[in-house]
Amino acid sequence: MWRFAYLECVSCGAAQPVGYEGYLCPKCGNNLLVRYETEHLRREVREGRFPDRARSDILRYAAVLPVQGEHLFPPLRVGGTPLYARPGLAAAVGISELFFKDDGLNPSGSLKDRASAVALAVARARGVSMVAGASTGNAGSSMACMAAAMGTPCTIFVPAGAPEAKIAQLLVFGARVVAVRGSYDDAFDLCLELAGKHGWFNRNTGYNPFTREGKKTVAYEICEQLRWEAPHWIVVPVGDGNIISAVGKGLEEMAAMGLIRRRPRLLCAQAATSAAVSRTLWKIERSGAGGTSGAEVWCELPGLLECVRGAHTVADSICVDRPRDGVAAVRAIMESGGAAVTVDDDMILQAVAELGRKAAIFAEPAAAVTWACLRKAVDTGVVEKSARVVCLITGSGLKDVASTQRAVGKPLQVEPDVEAVERSLGL
Amino acid sequence: MWRFAYLECVSCGAAQPVGYEGYLCPKCGNNLLVRYETEHLRREVREGRFPDRARSDILRYAAVLPVQGEHLFPPLRVGGTPLYARPGLAAAVGISELFFKDDGLNPSGSLKDRASAVALAVARARGVSMVAGASTGNAGSSMACMAAAMGTPCTIFVPAGAPEAKIAQLLVFGARVVAVRGSYDDAFDLCLELAGKHGWFNRNTGYNPFTREGKKTVAYEICEQLRWEAPHWIVVPVGDGNIISAVGKGLEEMAAMGLIRRRPRLLCAQAATSAAVSRTLWKIERSGAGGTSGAEVWCELPGLLECVRGAHTVADSICVDRPRDGVAAVRAIMESGGAAVTVDDDMILQAVAELGRKAAIFAEPAAAVTWACLRKAVDTGVVEKSARVVCLITGSGLKDVASTQRAVGKPLQVEPDVEAVERSLGL
Repeated sequence: MWRFAYLECVSCGAAQPVGYEGYLCPKCGNNLLVRYETEHLRREVREGRFPDRARSDILRYAAVLPVQGEHLFPPLRVGGTPLYARPGLAAAVGISELFFKDDGLNPSGSLKDRASAVALAVARARGVSMVAGASTGNAGSSMACMAAAMGTPCTIFVPAGAPEAKIAQLLVFGARVVAVRGSYDDAFDLCLELAGKHGWFNRNTGYNPFTREGKKTVAYEICEQLRWEAPHWIVVPVGDGNIISAVGKGLEEMAAMGLIRRRPRLLCAQAATSAAVSRTLWKIERSGAGGTSGAEVWCELPGLLECVRGAHTVADSICVDRPRDGVAAVRAIMESGGAAVTVDDDMILQAVAELGRKAAIFAEPAAAVTWACLRKAVDTGVVEKSARVVCLITGSGLKDVASTQRAVGKPLQVEPDVEAVERSLGL
Repeated sequence: MWRFAYLECVSCGAAQPVGYEGYLCPKCGNNLLVRYETEHLRREVREGRFPDRARSDILRYAAVLPVQGEHLFPPLRVGGTPLYARPGLAAAVGISELFFKDDGLNPSGSLKDRASAVALAVARARGVSMVAGASTGNAGSSMACMAAAMGTPCTIFVPAGAPEAKIAQLLVFGARVVAVRGSYDDAFDLCLELAGKHGWFNRNTGYNPFTREGKKTVAYEICEQLRWEAPHWIVVPVGDGNIISAVGKGLEEMAAMGLIRRRPRLLCAQAATSAAVSRTLWKIERSGAGGTSGAEVWCELPGLLECVRGAHTVADSICVDRPRDGVAAVRAIMESGGAAVTVDDDMILQAVAELGRKAAIFAEPAAAVTWACLRKAVDTGVVEKSARVVCLITGSGLKDVASTQRAVGKPLQVEPDVEAVERSLGL
C-alpha cells in the first residue's frame, strides 16, 4: 500500500520509517520530506510506465505518490489543469516565453486540492475516522470538498471572525465547522491539540508531510506539458512555503529520474507585507552563504527563519506571520539557484486586472502576485530576457470577488438611450 | 472556412444560405438552427476521424462546429469537463446510475464558455471588430473572458442595478461595460439596436444561432465519456431554453451520425416561479398534442409559447420572463420524448447543500436545480427506477456564494478552549 521509502527531516536529515505516524521530526521538531527509491523510478521512466498515460489527473503520477490504490483517492478530477502560452504578455515584459498554469480549475478552485487529495488518501490508508484542519481559506474548502467526495468526516477550525463567504464554502461541502472565538492561531492550536488527543488526521499545511506530495504534481504536469523541456524559471506565490517547497521537490525528483535535464530556478513571489521567506533568503544572501548548500546549511535554517509581525495583504491566501513550511521553502529555493521578489498590494491588484484583460485568466490576488513579481524580476534583471518562464496560478478569482472589485473599479453608467450610449462610448 | 451547410428556421423550416448574416429567420422572425451534411459526418465517424482524439476540449468535436481553424478559437481549455459517477446518490434517489457533468470547471466557471468560444470564432471568421451582448450573469462574463483571450473588443450592457460582484467579473476581463439606468430589457434592446447599427456581432443567447453549436458539445462529451452508451435521461436547467435545445441538437446529430443508438430523453428542470418552458409543455400535453411532432407542430409553437410575468428565483441564471430560445427548447424536449419538472427555491437551496455534501460538487443554484428536479421526477414516476441519468451542472457555486450562505446556515461558535470544543462536538 505504501509507495515511499522513508521520511527525512528537512533540517537535520534524520530518517523515520514508513510506519512513523508523527508529523514532525522526533529529533529536532522540523518538517519531514517523503523520500522514494529513485532507482525503481528511473526504471519506470525508461520502460515508459511513468507517467501513466491512461490518466489525466494527479494519478497520472501515481508512482511518485506515497500511497497506492485508486480507491483511496477522491472521485474528482484533481490536477490535469491547463498550461496556457501567452506570447503577448511575454513580449510585453520582454522575455522569450511565458506560460500560466491555471490551477484555479481544480474542483474546489485552487491548487490545494492536489494536497488534500493525497493527504486524505494517506488518512484513508491509515484507517483514520476523522480528518481535521485549521483554515479560513483554500486549504479548508479543499479539504472539505475532498472529504465529501470520500465520505470521510471532516472538522475545520476557523476564527469566528472569518468572512462569511469563506465559511459558506466550507459548510457547503458538509464539513463540521468550529468557529473559534479567537485568532487564527487559537484555531490552529485547538486543531492540533484535539487532533492529537482524538487520533484525527491533521492536514495542516506546513505540518503534514503529505500535502507536499500532492502539490508537487503541479511541477510534473508543467514539465510534461512542456514535453520535459523544463522552463528556466517557475514563479510561485509563497505564504507558508509549502507550494514552493513542493514544486522544488517535484523538480528534484524529476531530475533524479532522468525526466528533465535542466532544473528550473524558483522565483519566490510574495507580498511585501508578508515576506518572511523572502527576508530569510535575502539575509542569507547578504551573509555570503547564498551560494552554499548541503546538510550543514539546512541544519542552521530553522534558526535563520524570519517571521513577520502582523502580516497583512490583499493576497490573503499567502498572508502569514510564521511560514510553517519555511525551512523547506528556503531550502528548495536555494537548491534551485532561485531568488525572491516582493510587491505591494497595489501592484497585486493591478496584476489581477492585467491577467484578466490580457491573459483571460481570473486569478485570486495570491495567484496574481506571480505576474506582478515576474514583471519586477525582469525589470530588475533577476530574470533574464531570454528566459522561458511559468507562472503558477494557484487559485481562482471567483474565490475572492471582493478584492477584484477593488482592482477593476466601476462601470460607465448611462441613460437607456441610443444617443446617450453612443456619446459615452465616443461612437 | 465554414463547415455548416445552411441555417434552418426552428419554426417554419425555411433555409438560409451559409453567407446569411442575419440572426433570425427572415420569413417568420424565429430562431435559426445550424445544419450540417450528415453523410460526410457519418464517414468521418466510420473512418475513426471523429472525434479528434488529439484534443481534449471542444475542438475534439471540431467537425460539427460551424467554423474551421484552431486560430479562430480562444486559447483556453473550453469543455473537456469531468463526468462524475455518484452511485451513493443514485441509490438514495432509487435509480440505477447517476452522473454529474461538472461544467462549472470551464475557464469562466460556466457552460456558457462553450457558446462564447464558438460564437466568437464565428465573429472572427466574419472579421467583426466588436462583439456585444446584454447579460448580468454567466453569458456576459464568459463572453468577456473569451474575448479577452482573443484580444477582441467586447461591449456588455447590464442594468445599472446588477450586483457589483457580477459586474466585477465582467470588468476583470476588460470588457467595456455599459451600465444602463434601466431594466434588463432596456439593456437587451439597447444592445440589439447598437449592435445592428454599428455592425457589432451580437452574442445574445436565444438570438445568435451559433451559441447552440458551442453548447451542444456538452452532449457529445457526455456520450463519449459513457463510451457512446447514452443515458436514458439528461437533466438540464432551463431558463431561455438555449442549453436544452443545444443538448437536444447534439443528441440528434449523434444519432444521425450513428454514434449513439438510444436518444436520451430530456428532463426540463426549472424553478416553479420561472417556468415558461415547462408551462408550455404541460399545455401542449393537456391539449393532447404531446405525442405528435413534425413540421406542422413546430409552425404553431411560437404561438403556444408561455411567458411569465415577474419571474423570480434564487436560481438567477435561469430566471426569465420570456424564454428567448423557447421554441427550440420545447421542440427539443418534445422530440426527445422528454418531460418538465419544477421545484421551489427552498428545494433548490437544499439541492445546493446536498450536492456539496454528498457529491462534492459546489453548484450554483441554477445548476443544483437539476438534482432537485430529478429527485421529484423519480418520486412522481416521471423518471423510471431503472434509469441511467446525467444531471448537467452548468455553473460553479463560486459564482454565487451569497445564495450558498442562505443554503448552508452558520457554523457552531465556541470559546478557544479544548473542553468547550469537546462539549460542543459531543466528544
